[in-house]
Amino acid sequence: MMDTPLLDTVNLPADLRALAPDQLPQLAAELRQFLLESVGKTGGHFASNLGAVELTIALHYVYDTPRDHLVWDVGHQSYPHKILTGRKHRMHTMRQYGGLAGFPKRGESEYDDFGVGHSSTSIGAALGMAVADKLSGSPARSVAIIGDGAMTAGQAFEALNNAGDMDIDLLVILNDNEMSISPNVGALPKYLARRVVHGEMRGVLHNIKHQSAPILDKLLPTAVKDLAEKAEQKLKTVANESEHVKQSLSLFENFGFAYTGAVDGHNVTELVHILRELKQRKGPQLLHVITKKGQGYKLAENDPVKYHAIGKTPSAEPAKPAAAPRPTYTQIFGRWLIEQARADKRLVAITPAMREGSGLVEFEQQFPERYFDVGIAEQHAVTFAAGLACCGVKPVVAIYSTFLQRAYDQLVHDVALQNLPVLFAIDRAGIVGADGPTHAGAYDLSFLRCVPNMVIAAPSDENECRLLLSTCYALDVPTAVRYPRGAGRGAAVSDSLDTVPVGKGVLRRKGAGNTAFVAFGSMVAPALAAAENLDASVADMRFVKPLDLDLLAQLAREHDYLVCVEENAAAGGAGGAVLEALAQMNIVKPVLLLGIPDTVTGHGDADKLLAEMDLCAAGLEQRVRAWQDV
Amino acid sequence: MMDTPLLDTVNLPADLRALAPDQLPQLAAELRQFLLESVGKTGGHFASNLGAVELTIALHYVYDTPRDHLVWDVGHQSYPHKILTGRKHRMHTMRQYGGLAGFPKRGESEYDDFGVGHSSTSIGAALGMAVADKLSGSPARSVAIIGDGAMTAGQAFEALNNAGDMDIDLLVILNDNEMSISPNVGALPKYLARRVVHGEMRGVLHNIKHQSAPILDKLLPTAVKDLAEKAEQKLKTVANESEHVKQSLSLFENFGFAYTGAVDGHNVTELVHILRELKQRKGPQLLHVITKKGQGYKLAENDPVKYHAIGKTPSAEPAKPAAAPRPTYTQIFGRWLIEQARADKRLVAITPAMREGSGLVEFEQQFPERYFDVGIAEQHAVTFAAGLACCGVKPVVAIYSTFLQRAYDQLVHDVALQNLPVLFAIDRAGIVGADGPTHAGAYDLSFLRCVPNMVIAAPSDENECRLLLSTCYALDVPTAVRYPRGAGRGAAVSDSLDTVPVGKGVLRRKGAGNTAFVAFGSMVAPALAAAENLDASVADMRFVKPLDLDLLAQLAREHDYLVCVEENAAAGGAGGAVLEALAQMNIVKPVLLLGIPDTVTGHGDADKLLAEMDLCAAGLEQRVRAWQDV
Repeated sequence: MMDTPLLDTVNLPADLRALAPDQLPQLAAELRQFLLESVGKTGGHFASNLGAVELTIALHYVYDTPRDHLVWDVGHQSYPHKILTGRKHRMHTMRQYGGLAGFPKRGESEYDDFGVGHSSTSIGAALGMAVADKLSGSPARSVAIIGDGAMTAGQAFEALNNAGDMDIDLLVILNDNEMSISPNVGALPKYLARRVVHGEMRGVLHNIKHQSAPILDKLLPTAVKDLAEKAEQKLKTVANESEHVKQSLSLFENFGFAYTGAVDGHNVTELVHILRELKQRKGPQLLHVITKKGQGYKLAENDPVKYHAIGKTPSAEPAKPAAAPRPTYTQIFGRWLIEQARADKRLVAITPAMREGSGLVEFEQQFPERYFDVGIAEQHAVTFAAGLACCGVKPVVAIYSTFLQRAYDQLVHDVALQNLPVLFAIDRAGIVGADGPTHAGAYDLSFLRCVPNMVIAAPSDENECRLLLSTCYALDVPTAVRYPRGAGRGAAVSDSLDTVPVGKGVLRRKGAGNTAFVAFGSMVAPALAAAENLDASVADMRFVKPLDLDLLAQLAREHDYLVCVEENAAAGGAGGAVLEALAQMNIVKPVLLLGIPDTVTGHGDADKLLAEMDLCAAGLEQRVRAWQDV
Repeated sequence: MMDTPLLDTVNLPADLRALAPDQLPQLAAELRQFLLESVGKTGGHFASNLGAVELTIALHYVYDTPRDHLVWDVGHQSYPHKILTGRKHRMHTMRQYGGLAGFPKRGESEYDDFGVGHSSTSIGAALGMAVADKLSGSPARSVAIIGDGAMTAGQAFEALNNAGDMDIDLLVILNDNEMSISPNVGALPKYLARRVVHGEMRGVLHNIKHQSAPILDKLLPTAVKDLAEKAEQKLKTVANESEHVKQSLSLFENFGFAYTGAVDGHNVTELVHILRELKQRKGPQLLHVITKKGQGYKLAENDPVKYHAIGKTPSAEPAKPAAAPRPTYTQIFGRWLIEQARADKRLVAITPAMREGSGLVEFEQQFPERYFDVGIAEQHAVTFAAGLACCGVKPVVAIYSTFLQRAYDQLVHDVALQNLPVLFAIDRAGIVGADGPTHAGAYDLSFLRCVPNMVIAAPSDENECRLLLSTCYALDVPTAVRYPRGAGRGAAVSDSLDTVPVGKGVLRRKGAGNTAFVAFGSMVAPALAAAENLDASVADMRFVKPLDLDLLAQLAREHDYLVCVEENAAAGGAGGAVLEALAQMNIVKPVLLLGIPDTVTGHGDADKLLAEMDLCAAGLEQRVRAWQDV
């Protein structure tokens, strides 16, 4: 590791604040280098952290943390913050089992004011803190740092609308790098681009003239110029622009925020000056900062989508893969979607800003007019799908389980109560590994199966995933197929669009023992493995709703013990559905429920986490034996 | 009923379109009169419907419904639409069992393009329809009609952001009456007021000059002038206004919408002209219409909050109540909140625009600085509460069960995973009656009990409600108390702030029979009544989470049959929790689950609906006997 004379002396923000302002650029350079090396070793979110180095230094330099509150939206950009708040020497444990969380986490540090992971909560949370401090007479200040991508989510606007009308001192920093994970979509990014081109100079001059902040006249930053050029290009493609540009520079003022910007987010000295100035101002303030995702690292600057999050050291020449890797469920879905779209013109795909994560890159290329990235806007994504379905289109909403929580009401109301044929392709169902509890898809079976009209499927391998996607798509009702993160076990995947009977499971193993596994989705494989030693039967139920009552009754008839196993919260999940079905059939039988326990799960290697919950072959066998020994 | 010569000839929009333009004002007068009489007889949403008479006529006159799509946001204003679309003679059945729904409903009429009930979905749904029609080559047009209150919800912005960036013909009509149900809060209404004052003339002149719409020069409407005066008053209270007003008139242009307005929403002739003009335009259009809630009915104009929804004919001199009515659960909550706030300075209350409905009117008066109406913004309400809770404040979020679905992710993420002490006071849990399935609180127990760290209580009467509120408030974890709509059974309510042991139920009746009711919340009373004939035991479990395992084990020991009963979906609800707990204790016992069935519920008298589901004393008894006879 390189020599970092300044960073070596900085363990906490108090150390940082002991530096002279002119030492900060060097610290930034060292911090960036440290970040490159530490993230390179451990993997994690890369580009956004490189973009936030100077801003993080400036914030801890100016604000009295941890008394003052910094709320990092999403938290993808919080690694520099972690390095500067006592966790430098644990950065090599990032996102690993027992190590640092990939996002701010209240339990991890007093400097982590708010646990995040999902976007667009920072303004509301920081507003809550500001109001609480005001009520208690605390002089603490609150700052929300939010990316331009996260600004497209409705919740951010709800918070702006609320805060802008309050007599409250709150600073919102809009960290504008023109990217969420995928490039931003929607009208707002165009607005911000206009703001940069036409607002930058005006804003700066306005500040100089009216708010006696002479430091600002130094602000003609290179990053801004670069982006302004790009934005200028964009503008030419926007119709009717010339008429409206001059009036279109006041979105945030409309919400009652005083606007400052755009300023260069990579000039730490200037950021310190501006933050000091803003800290004195009353009322809601918005500071528009321009940064470059991946700043200082050429590969990431050139391809920030690819380097948004990385699994290991990126290198100019990546090592050759040892063998053809097994496809992920995401890829299985992506391929199915394209082939189903070829077979059915009515199919359209919708993503809330997760083109790459949801496997839609190729679909967009092949069917641009049937591809809709609605921005970070899960609520809208689902209602939009419902509207499409009203008019004969068959929408597939590609969404992570954890993000579907954002659109629950829309799923209930707009889709299910109206019995509209929308297919939810639910990725990352169950334990997700390094991203931890904020991204775990632990609850979807519980919150979906109470909803009328829903059909819910949980595939047990890659081919089942394709079969169940085809099956659910073919139905004329609301459906959901939930599949796990990452690769499956390597099952050969058919290239047909065959379907299977709805609500029917499959007996995968007929055991001679007294036990039957009633297994769902990803837990079929470990159940089959556990069944070998137990000589148990194993049913792959395929559908959580409707349940295969005949198969259940048969299993109950032929065995003394039933064991339900699923990668969902055991509370209210598929196992609960089995219990309810047995009760309904007046079958009285000992049943063991195994699933995700009723606690906040950890982060790290997914297999390790699952093993810790006994959701692995050995764990299942041991739990069954312990239960039957009672 | 008065003579309505024109309205008598209009049963469908085709009849309306056969009228001459100069007949429309008379039709509007007749329609308003008809509305006054029909809503007066049946109850329902009053003021907003009176405000939408001319707009509705103009829309059906100009647009080719049902080919073209009208999406009414929330649907409070859809009665004139129902009258004009073949349902005039069924208006007297409005919101009654078997009668017309209080909101647009797809199954009810081909003219109801989208079922609504919750706010802010209209833009996204109409966008979906517009995109679907474009894909299929249909010439149909889509129009969303949204109130200014509904515009504060994030979902509306998500849809604006998405639509504004699309090459799509879509009309959004902002029906601005300066009210949601409570007066609007937040920065957006102030923006709209500014827009009216400063934008009106500019917008009109701009249109005249640039878009050759000469009809617009007649537009100096009285409603606009009235509102402009009010808005001018408001403006004087907004700090720093003069500087920004001129730049602040372009919110919707920022989102890529072409703006027209503000226009008088009570001038039907002019509305027809403008809509015809807008129908020809390409791209996303926003028409800002000024209406008066309660227009044409003095009582409602003067007090639109009171007359938002009415239960029967309002009269200048209301009949004297026969006896002191029993307090509603909402009132029990409101009183408790004030007394708890007196006892604990840390308490603050948060509502997403439901001051009246949630019983917070008096709290706001007594504790204005501890009262937060965040607008129609459920997501923000919960994250804001989480932020407050991080800094030592104890927030109480007063929210309807059905609206909590909007903030599910925020409850999981921002509150529960961080184990923050936020109390959710969940009103309207269970069947709600006339508002029907869109407002039923049928799922909260299912979607909450899978969430770690939550404590969930379901009070069985008014005094229990107070006890459980005090108990949950005193805890230092996320809690929820869910109580039904309307009045209880008249239990005497203590004025203490006493608490009860967490996770402990109470045996309310010890029967000699073989059956025990495991009853939750509102179902304790009918279970007690049913238990008389059955000589059954009845436990009031008080808590759905944690469950009282000792009491459950005791009931199982002492009885042959357990009957779980709750006013929540039977799928995944409290009964499911009982099954899971019994399985966990290795107790094998016949259990009957009674709750809301897995279908879309109806609307009308709540007791009738509950009886239909056997969730009444007679129904419970009958279901138990039938089950035990098997």
